Amino acid sequence: MTQAQIKANWIAVDWGTSNMRAWAMSASGTVLAEASSDQGMGKLDRSGFEPALLAVIKDWIDGPTTVIACGMVGSRQGWVEAPYAAVPCATLPEGLVRAPTKHPDLTVYVIPGIKQTNPADVMRGEETQITGFLTRNKNWDGVICLPGTHTKWVHISADEVVSFQTFMTGELFDTIATQTVLRHSIAADGWDDEAFAQGLDMGLSRPERLAARLFSLRANGLLNDMPATAARAQLSGLLIGTELAAAKPYWLGQQIAVIGDSKLSKLYVDALATQAAPATQVNAATITLAGLTAAYQRLKG
Amino acid sequence: MTQAQIKANWIAVDWGTSNMRAWAMSASGTVLAEASSDQGMGKLDRSGFEPALLAVIKDWIDGPTTVIACGMVGSRQGWVEAPYAAVPCATLPEGLVRAPTKHPDLTVYVIPGIKQTNPADVMRGEETQITGFLTRNKNWDGVICLPGTHTKWVHISADEVVSFQTFMTGELFDTIATQTVLRHSIAADGWDDEAFAQGLDMGLSRPERLAARLFSLRANGLLNDMPATAARAQLSGLLIGTELAAAKPYWLGQQIAVIGDSKLSKLYVDALATQAAPATQVNAATITLAGLTAAYQRLKG
Repeated sequence: MTQAQIKANWIAVDWGTSNMRAWAMSASGTVLAEASSDQGMGKLDRSGFEPALLAVIKDWIDGPTTVIACGMVGSRQGWVEAPYAAVPCATLPEGLVRAPTKHPDLTVYVIPGIKQTNPADVMRGEETQITGFLTRNKNWDGVICLPGTHTKWVHISADEVVSFQTFMTGELFDTIATQTVLRHSIAADGWDDEAFAQGLDMGLSRPERLAARLFSLRANGLLNDMPATAARAQLSGLLIGTELAAAKPYWLGQQIAVIGDSKLSKLYVDALATQAAPATQVNAATITLAGLTAAYQRLKG
Repeated sequence: MTQAQIKANWIAVDWGTSNMRAWAMSASGTVLAEASSDQGMGKLDRSGFEPALLAVIKDWIDGPTTVIACGMVGSRQGWVEAPYAAVPCATLPEGLVRAPTKHPDLTVYVIPGIKQTNPADVMRGEETQITGFLTRNKNWDGVICLPGTHTKWVHISADEVVSFQTFMTGELFDTIATQTVLRHSIAADGWDDEAFAQGLDMGLSRPERLAARLFSLRANGLLNDMPATAARAQLSGLLIGTELAAAKPYWLGQQIAVIGDSKLSKLYVDALATQAAPATQVNAATITLAGLTAAYQRLKG
């Protein structure tokens, strides 16, 4: 079967700032095909979304087709603004927002994000991952950690988001490693488990010292020939440890699930284990698709 | 008197990563002229230092002339490596290091920096500011804060550096404000005293929450129309407050002097005042020159 012969019953789309990923779905909910594009929200103006989507999915369209999308595509700078639902709320709000389209067979719905007024916080995309997780784990109460560029800690009770908090941990890692004086001391890849554990311990025990520990990485490179791979792992440990110290009111004594990139999620799961806080690791792509499927089913059902 | 008529008895140079500043000095120690250049250490390879210096000072040379330089010019990537003295040590070490020169009348000495093995830390340039301060404040014991790109806290006792700690606060401010998602929420200039005070309080009271507070600045911009000037001031307060929380073992109950850019130093002095820790503000350029002068006098005398 060639790509051209796939006819989607409906199409699921995860559209973030940097990338877009689409799945052609059958009537029974199985994946017929998937494709992706680097045309993330950050690269598009409002008129660019429909062409960017069609470039990926046009061969899957055979008659009227519904698309369900989540992520930054629903932001103010996205295809259509899907206003945030406010906590406490369900992760799958009533009001999907229709995006304007020109293609006669295309109907596109965007899932709203969630906001919290105080402390101010927002999410877009993670709510759909949480929907997917809760669809597969009925009556689950606890805390979901979604590590990434902007890591989220989300308190779930009675199928609602009670509160959440975002940490810029992933973006700080990338920015500090590449845009500061530490770029001379930190490898672009490579790893050192022991250095990660040391950084984690420093971050957990003295989280206020972050800005000083960062300069120590530089000084350890200059004075003690600390390897750049060890510095990379220790920076990651420092930032994750500092985050865990601050997020303790979220995870302490709670049931915990970690949803994200598998390698990064494992770092969080292992780090939480050192604090006697067992966590379940969940595959992000699978769970996003489960959330988009739940949104489609409610729309149709 | 035109620039061409100035003949220096000796020349003082403060040569950092980004800039270089030179003073033509008389035999009696007064400033005859000063000039600067954007040819910092970061822009030069080893052979570029002498031409860059001559471009600034050549009109001041009339016969054999001694130049005393401090700062990153003495780093491994500088004109000549001036190996670090190790704490505990005086800020003006015995061994000035001679840089290689081609000009027949030029003799250039570089002041070594100071290192600390554990926790690993280094300074270059600040030691000369401290020398200048101690020259003018005999028998001064206490803690000197040198705010900047890499803020230093230095414990001084019996005219020696006992220990010190560097915080990447200034570089974090610049990097976070311009290279992360916060660039959309933070003004390039402008200020808000109240927002600074709020950030300071947050940083001092919950320093471990930094990565979450950062994202709150973004969310407050999106949800609550927080002005970009207020976000700028609050970011500054957050980072300085977090630093003060971690540096408390340095400043608590100590005599404190703050040496640096006058606007930034005032933020630190005012912030310390909120913690009942009075600090004396010292002009950085004046004190650097005093340190270079002390180095010259010991060399000659």
